[in-house]
Amino acid sequence: MRGLEETQENLAKQFQQLEVALQENQLQAFRENFLALHIYEQGQFYQSLDAAKRRLVYAYLSPKELADMFDSLEDTDEMKNYLEEMRPTYAAEMLGHMYTDNAVDIMKTLPKHQLAQYLTLMDSEEATEIKDLLHYEDDTAGSIMTTEYVSIVANQTVRSAMYVLKSQADMAETIYYIYVIDQEERLVGVLSLRDLIVNDDDRMIEDIMSKRVISVHVGDDQEDVAQTFRDYDFLALPVIDYDGGLLGIVTVDDIIDVIDDEAASDYSGLAGVNVEEVYENPVKAASRRLPWLITLLFLGMATASLISRYEELVSEASILAVFISLITGTAGNAGTQSLAVAVRRLAINDDKEKTIWNTIIGEVLTGLVTGAVTGLTIFLIVTVWKGNPILGFVIGMAMMCAITVANLAGSLIPMLMDKLGFDPAVASGPFITTLSDLTSVLIYFNIASIFMNYFIK
Amino acid sequence: MRGLEETQENLAKQFQQLEVALQENQLQAFRENFLALHIYEQGQFYQSLDAAKRRLVYAYLSPKELADMFDSLEDTDEMKNYLEEMRPTYAAEMLGHMYTDNAVDIMKTLPKHQLAQYLTLMDSEEATEIKDLLHYEDDTAGSIMTTEYVSIVANQTVRSAMYVLKSQADMAETIYYIYVIDQEERLVGVLSLRDLIVNDDDRMIEDIMSKRVISVHVGDDQEDVAQTFRDYDFLALPVIDYDGGLLGIVTVDDIIDVIDDEAASDYSGLAGVNVEEVYENPVKAASRRLPWLITLLFLGMATASLISRYEELVSEASILAVFISLITGTAGNAGTQSLAVAVRRLAINDDKEKTIWNTIIGEVLTGLVTGAVTGLTIFLIVTVWKGNPILGFVIGMAMMCAITVANLAGSLIPMLMDKLGFDPAVASGPFITTLSDLTSVLIYFNIASIFMNYFIK
Repeated sequence: MRGLEETQENLAKQFQQLEVALQENQLQAFRENFLALHIYEQGQFYQSLDAAKRRLVYAYLSPKELADMFDSLEDTDEMKNYLEEMRPTYAAEMLGHMYTDNAVDIMKTLPKHQLAQYLTLMDSEEATEIKDLLHYEDDTAGSIMTTEYVSIVANQTVRSAMYVLKSQADMAETIYYIYVIDQEERLVGVLSLRDLIVNDDDRMIEDIMSKRVISVHVGDDQEDVAQTFRDYDFLALPVIDYDGGLLGIVTVDDIIDVIDDEAASDYSGLAGVNVEEVYENPVKAASRRLPWLITLLFLGMATASLISRYEELVSEASILAVFISLITGTAGNAGTQSLAVAVRRLAINDDKEKTIWNTIIGEVLTGLVTGAVTGLTIFLIVTVWKGNPILGFVIGMAMMCAITVANLAGSLIPMLMDKLGFDPAVASGPFITTLSDLTSVLIYFNIASIFMNYFIK
Repeated sequence: MRGLEETQENLAKQFQQLEVALQENQLQAFRENFLALHIYEQGQFYQSLDAAKRRLVYAYLSPKELADMFDSLEDTDEMKNYLEEMRPTYAAEMLGHMYTDNAVDIMKTLPKHQLAQYLTLMDSEEATEIKDLLHYEDDTAGSIMTTEYVSIVANQTVRSAMYVLKSQADMAETIYYIYVIDQEERLVGVLSLRDLIVNDDDRMIEDIMSKRVISVHVGDDQEDVAQTFRDYDFLALPVIDYDGGLLGIVTVDDIIDVIDDEAASDYSGLAGVNVEEVYENPVKAASRRLPWLITLLFLGMATASLISRYEELVSEASILAVFISLITGTAGNAGTQSLAVAVRRLAINDDKEKTIWNTIIGEVLTGLVTGAVTGLTIFLIVTVWKGNPILGFVIGMAMMCAITVANLAGSLIPMLMDKLGFDPAVASGPFITTLSDLTSVLIYFNIASIFMNYFIK
C-alpha cells in the first residue's frame, strides 16, 4: 500500500522498465505491465515518450486499449499531435472507443478535413453521437455531457433492471445513477445503484425511483451546472432538451475540470496574465504579457499627460510630487479589493440585478469609510512630518476621494462587463489600478489647485 | 422534469407551503413534503427559517432525519448556532447520526465544555470515532476523511461480498468502492461496485480486486489529495496510516470543497482582501480591509519620503513628476503578472527546489524582455512628445530596470514565503505593487540624477 510519495517513486521505476520492454520488442511484457497501470499512469508514461516510441505503442495496443488511456488525457493540443502520428483508421477507431464527450473535446480542435475523415472511417453509430455533440456551444452543459449513460423503463422489477444494468455497464461512463425514461425518451425518474442494491429484487422500479429529478438543460452554462454539483453533491447530473428528453449526463470528473478552469481564469483575470501557460521561455512569456502591458502603458500616458498639465503647479510646489505615488498606489490597492469582491459576488449570485446595485452602493460606502480612515491617518502623518496641516488636509482629502472613486470603478467595471455579456472576471487588477491612477491624479491636482495658495512655501 | 431555473421557481413555492404547514401544526403534511425534498433543498429551507420556526422543526423531525439534512450544510458557524437551539440530548444524537467527517467539522469549532457534553451524551461507538478524527491536523487527509466506508476480506465470493455490502450500505458514505483488508486491517486491495456487478457471483474477491491501490497517508496535505483526485478521476480515495492500516476514505464532494476553498484563498491573496466574506455592511467590510490598506500606506510612505529626498531635483526639473505614476504603475502591473505566474507554478509543481530557481530566473529574463520593449516604446513616445531624447532615454531606461526588478520581486517573494513555510498565495498583488513603487522610484530618480544636467531646460 502506498501513500502519494511512494507512488511517485514506484512509478518512475515501472516507467523505466516499460521503456526497456518497448525498445527490446518485448510485446508480451510491455502489454502486461502497461495494462496493469491505472489509465492516468498509462497516460503519464505515454506522454513521456518520444514520437518514435509512441509509434511502437500504437503497434502494441489495440485502438480500444489506447482509447481507455486517451480518456485520461487532458491537453487537447497534445492529443491532436498524437492523432497525426497514427494511421487514420487506427485513430478513427480509437476515437470511436473513447467516451463521447472526451472524443468530442479533441475533435472540436481538428481541421475540418481531418474531422470529416475520422467521422467517415468511424463506426456509424459512434459518428452520429459525436456529430450530435459537436454542435453544442462551448461552456454549456451540452458541451461537457456524454451520451454513455444507463437508462431503463419504469415498468420493471429491480431484478430485471439489474440485468439491463449489467449488460450496459461496459459502455457506460457511470453506472451509479440509472435514469428512467418513458416511451418518448423523456426523463421521468432517477435511481442510484445504491437504491437497486438495497431494495428487494421483486420491487418495481416505479415504486423506488425518485420522481423529483434534478436535471440541467442542454444550454445551461457549465458554471451553473458546476454550482448544482456543489450544492447537491451529485456524482452525475442528467442533461435534458427543452421537451424534457434525456440527451446525456455530466459526470463529476468533468465538473472538477470546469471548476479548475474557472478558478484559473478568475485568477488570470485579476493578475492580467494567463497563468495556465506557465511553461514558456522568457521571450514567449514576454510576448504574451506585452499586449496588456503596452495597452496599460497608453492608459498610463493619459495620467502622465494629465500631470503634465499641472507641471507648473508642481514646479511651484514640488512637495506635491512627493505624494503622487502614495495616493495613486493606495487608491489602486483599494480598487483591487473592490474588484475582487465584485467579481466574486457576481460569480456566486443568481439575482444579478439586485447584486449589481447592492454591490456598487456597498463598495462606494465601504470606500468612503476606508477612505475617511486612511485619509485621516495620512493627514496626521503629513501634518506632523511636514508641519503643514493644510498640505495634510489636501493629501488626506485627495486620498479619501481617490479611494472612494477607485472602489466605484472596481465594482462598476465588472458589473458593466457582466451587463454587456462579458465575463466580469476578465476585468483585471492592473486595469483597475491603472485607471484609478488617472482618476486619483485628477482628484489630487484639482484639490491641490484649490488650496494652492495656502501651502506653497 | 426541470432545468435549473424551473427548479428555483418550484422550490420557492414548496418552501412557502412548508412554512404554512409548520405554522399551522400540520405535522403529517410537513413531514411528508419536507422529507420528499433533496437534503440540500431541506437545508435551504431550514436556513431560511427564524429560530422559533426552527424549534418547531426539531419537534417534527427525528435526530436521524435532521442529521441527513445537516450533512448537506456547509457553514460551520451557523451550524454551531443551530446546535445551541436544540436540547443537548437531541443535538448529541443528531451529531452521532451525521457522517463522522461532517460531525467533526462542526464539533471542532465548539467550546470545550459543549464538545465534552455532546461526546458524553452520544452513543459511545460514535463518540470514539469522532474523538479519533478530532485529533488530525487541519488541511490534512485525516481532517477531511470519513470513517463510514465498506470494507471486506479477500477470501470470499462476489455473492457474499454483495451480501456484506447490502448490510453496510445504510451507514456508508459511498458504496461505490469496496476496500479489501487483511487480518490486521491493512488495506490490500480495492474493487468498485461496478466490478462486483459485472463479475460472476462465484468469483473470488481476491481474483478480481485491484492490488495496486492508490491511497493517501493520513498526514498528506489536502491539496495534494485533491490533485490525486484530479489526476485519477476517483470518486473516493482510501486514507492509510504509516503501517498501511486503513483509517478512512475521502470522498469527491469534500474534494470539491477543498478545490473551491483553495481557489478562493488564492484569489483573495492576489487581491489583498478576503473574498469569502462578501456579505457585510460597509463598516464591517471596511474594518476588514483597513489593516491591509494602512499597512501598505506605511510602505507607501517610504516611497513618499524617498521622493521627498529628491524634492530639489523635482523642483528643478518638474517634468520628472509627470512620469512617476507611469513608471510605478507599469512596473506594478508587470510585478503582478509575475506574482500570479510564480504562485501558480508553486501550486502545480512537486519539485519545489527546481521550480524556485527556474521561475525566478525565467521571470527576471521575461522582465528584461518586456522591460526592453516597454522601455523602447516609452522612449519613442517621450522623445516625440517632449522633443527631448535624453529625457526619453531616462524614462525608458528607468522603465526597463523598474519592470525587471518588479518581476524579480513578484517571483522572489512568493518563493521565499514558500521556503519559510507560508502559503505563497498570501503574497498579495497590492503588496507587490506597493513594494515595486518603492524600487521603481529609487531606480527612476537615481537614473534621472545621473542625466540631470542634460534635460533640465
